[in-house]
Amino acid sequence: MNAVLQYQAQRRPIPAGFLEALGAHFGDRFSTAHSVRDHHGRDESPYPPALPDGVVYAATTEEVAWVARHCNEHKVPLVAFGAGSSLEGHVLAVEGGISLDLTGMNRVVAVNAEDLTVTVQAGVTRKQLNAEIRDTGLFFPLDPGADATLGGMAATRASGTNAVRYGTMRENVMSLKVVTADGRIIQTAGRARKSSAGYDLTRLFVGSEGTLGIITEVTVRLYPQPEAVSAAVCNFPDLHSAVQSVIEIIQMGVPVARVEFMDLAAVKATNAYSKLSLHESPLLLFEFHGSPGGVREQAETVQEITSANGGMAFEWAEHPEDRSRLWAARHDAYFAGLHLRPGSRSSTTDVCVPISRLADCVLETAADLDRASFPYTILGHVGDGNFHVLMLLDPDNPLEWQESERINQSLVTRALQMQGTCTGEHGIGLHKMEFMLAEHGRDALDLMHAVKQAFDPNNILNPGKMIPPA
Amino acid sequence: MNAVLQYQAQRRPIPAGFLEALGAHFGDRFSTAHSVRDHHGRDESPYPPALPDGVVYAATTEEVAWVARHCNEHKVPLVAFGAGSSLEGHVLAVEGGISLDLTGMNRVVAVNAEDLTVTVQAGVTRKQLNAEIRDTGLFFPLDPGADATLGGMAATRASGTNAVRYGTMRENVMSLKVVTADGRIIQTAGRARKSSAGYDLTRLFVGSEGTLGIITEVTVRLYPQPEAVSAAVCNFPDLHSAVQSVIEIIQMGVPVARVEFMDLAAVKATNAYSKLSLHESPLLLFEFHGSPGGVREQAETVQEITSANGGMAFEWAEHPEDRSRLWAARHDAYFAGLHLRPGSRSSTTDVCVPISRLADCVLETAADLDRASFPYTILGHVGDGNFHVLMLLDPDNPLEWQESERINQSLVTRALQMQGTCTGEHGIGLHKMEFMLAEHGRDALDLMHAVKQAFDPNNILNPGKMIPPA
Repeated sequence: MNAVLQYQAQRRPIPAGFLEALGAHFGDRFSTAHSVRDHHGRDESPYPPALPDGVVYAATTEEVAWVARHCNEHKVPLVAFGAGSSLEGHVLAVEGGISLDLTGMNRVVAVNAEDLTVTVQAGVTRKQLNAEIRDTGLFFPLDPGADATLGGMAATRASGTNAVRYGTMRENVMSLKVVTADGRIIQTAGRARKSSAGYDLTRLFVGSEGTLGIITEVTVRLYPQPEAVSAAVCNFPDLHSAVQSVIEIIQMGVPVARVEFMDLAAVKATNAYSKLSLHESPLLLFEFHGSPGGVREQAETVQEITSANGGMAFEWAEHPEDRSRLWAARHDAYFAGLHLRPGSRSSTTDVCVPISRLADCVLETAADLDRASFPYTILGHVGDGNFHVLMLLDPDNPLEWQESERINQSLVTRALQMQGTCTGEHGIGLHKMEFMLAEHGRDALDLMHAVKQAFDPNNILNPGKMIPPA
Repeated sequence: MNAVLQYQAQRRPIPAGFLEALGAHFGDRFSTAHSVRDHHGRDESPYPPALPDGVVYAATTEEVAWVARHCNEHKVPLVAFGAGSSLEGHVLAVEGGISLDLTGMNRVVAVNAEDLTVTVQAGVTRKQLNAEIRDTGLFFPLDPGADATLGGMAATRASGTNAVRYGTMRENVMSLKVVTADGRIIQTAGRARKSSAGYDLTRLFVGSEGTLGIITEVTVRLYPQPEAVSAAVCNFPDLHSAVQSVIEIIQMGVPVARVEFMDLAAVKATNAYSKLSLHESPLLLFEFHGSPGGVREQAETVQEITSANGGMAFEWAEHPEDRSRLWAARHDAYFAGLHLRPGSRSSTTDVCVPISRLADCVLETAADLDRASFPYTILGHVGDGNFHVLMLLDPDNPLEWQESERINQSLVTRALQMQGTCTGEHGIGLHKMEFMLAEHGRDALDLMHAVKQAFDPNNILNPGKMIPPA
């Protein structure tokens, strides 16, 4: 593991008898085996693992509350664990303590098709959810690259390729069941589409990364499966013309469902990894949802814009299976990138800027990266102004990691100067804590500290993450 | 004024020299004149006025911070004041103190047309905003009945007739400038369309009703003016068939921009007050936004649904001026209702329920109301599951007020049993505090208390509102 990305944290002592009490309560759903702890001490981030002292496999909200009370009483850290697909070190037990595995809580609790809502336990994954509701004619559009759990997606305010049309978890979570640090169980809201009744606890927990409470149930909005769907690839001579096209499409208000950017390296990596034969130049992947007439109209408008910007003719993915293959490849772009450089790890950036600044931000960043000593790819949910750089690093070469950190720091500085954010959808975790002060300022950060202190006075919930020490 | 709707609150003593210091600092922008205090001690709610001890007309965020520091140091209540159009008693100075009039902060700070955002000072009203940005081809869709200020709309999480398509202030506020209780100035977010960087302070202040901070600037999303707009009226034989039509339209996913319900009494009141000649039966007002083809398609789908439910043929408002007249009449429906019973005051309900329960909720409520001794009208943003009953009461008859409170209580109980909320868009203020415990439960309410305590330990910000005493 690289020696550059480290965390400074002290493991807290575990009081005598603490682990034994968990074992007595949970039986074989509690483990201190090294292999189990190792699995729960790592994610997709490039950090060295940080193992919890024990792992509980929870089956009910009441069990989660029991664990929270037990941990809170003894001031032992408690880290919620779902798919383990974080890129930012969210689930590492940097202060030790208990990892709470919620993947066994994977039941769809209530489908309210008439209201376009569904309530699921936190461990349900996005693919499982869509499989289980397929017959209703509804779907849940949010799709981070990984098959993440709904609980994890809510906790990191995740989004994905459909957010440009359907919004992020911020807009799509209607209500949460949450266990507080001291083991109380609350429901943050009802199921009405809007409410002005009190502080927005739902959105306070969405994006709180397990630091304010443990999410055990998630109620989200669903959408009617569109009558017509079409998808197309559009190649461009360069990065600038692709990004400029997106800016114009958004400014025109075209309700495009997906518009994803891949740079040349990402296209090559995807062709190799996913056995596609995309034309090898920077490109945009589009998907249009609507009535047959509406989809046709959107596609025509978009083609006029891309063509005026030097884009090539659309290559249509006519059949559902072609579309699935295309989007599966897009979702695998992270792994495709890693394969560009066998044995590498990726340090992945996630800035998001106002769309008017997107071209500048991407171009200046690409210029920086072209001078770097390692390969990279650029992928982007560019309709939202959000893009990722995968920097493909030799895990054993500290110089590369230092270089990548410098590039990331200057990228974030650039994004913040453009009124953007250091993270559009991956969250803060460990890796972006250093940017919180620059992004929010001392006074706003102090308010976040005050919320944390009010909700979790013993600092047991995912300690050492998100909010940097004052 | 009625003797039934009262507030229990103690006026706090004003320390010697406190008002004089404000006078010295603000000159003629500070007033203790009775007429000025009276204007700032009342709103559109039926409560008797509660006068502040003095009124400051703020011109800058820094001035707001100065007032906050001064009030906080002396533990004097501070109540933000905008258009004064609250229906729930939000701006009444029930514990005395200072009313902070923000209507002079009415400047559009930055139009970022390319990013579809605008930043305004808190005192800008929705109509002023749309007038000032008209030339950009963009518009801000949210339209509470009154010409409210953007600051007030953010503070109450307001919405209006367009929310079914464009969302509420929850979805449309991108960032806020806020003065904290102790006079610090924070910006809650940048201008990126999405972010996963830390707790969602923006949405914590949206809907906080002036109890957590004073909003001085608001950045909201804008939308391209639709290429085509059409509006139509559809009459129904009864309430049930109208509401059932709406449920089916929403479940089909038709992106209707507006769908408003008026019961027979509301139609009659509107014809009389706004000099219209609407056919007098329960009706729906529709508006469709999109391309010419898209609008036609939406209208056809909706007509099929309404017609299958017994709706009459659409009456189209073809010309822009006809549409403006129709929607102006809808926005005046509150005043039209009051004119049904000259000299009356309205107690206005605001429940919102999941759409599958909307017909039941409206019908059971209408049955209750038909037994009441006073006239009423029902109006609704029914696409969101939200409707208002205007109960037109004799201000001097305590029996009517008691009766209206009983009806409102059973309406809210019904809505909560349906997983709805006591307020879809008007906020809690004074009048709905009694429902907060039933809606949220003790533990969630305790978390709200904890936030309030953390942000405003001296309880100077709009005290006596929203969160009932523990």
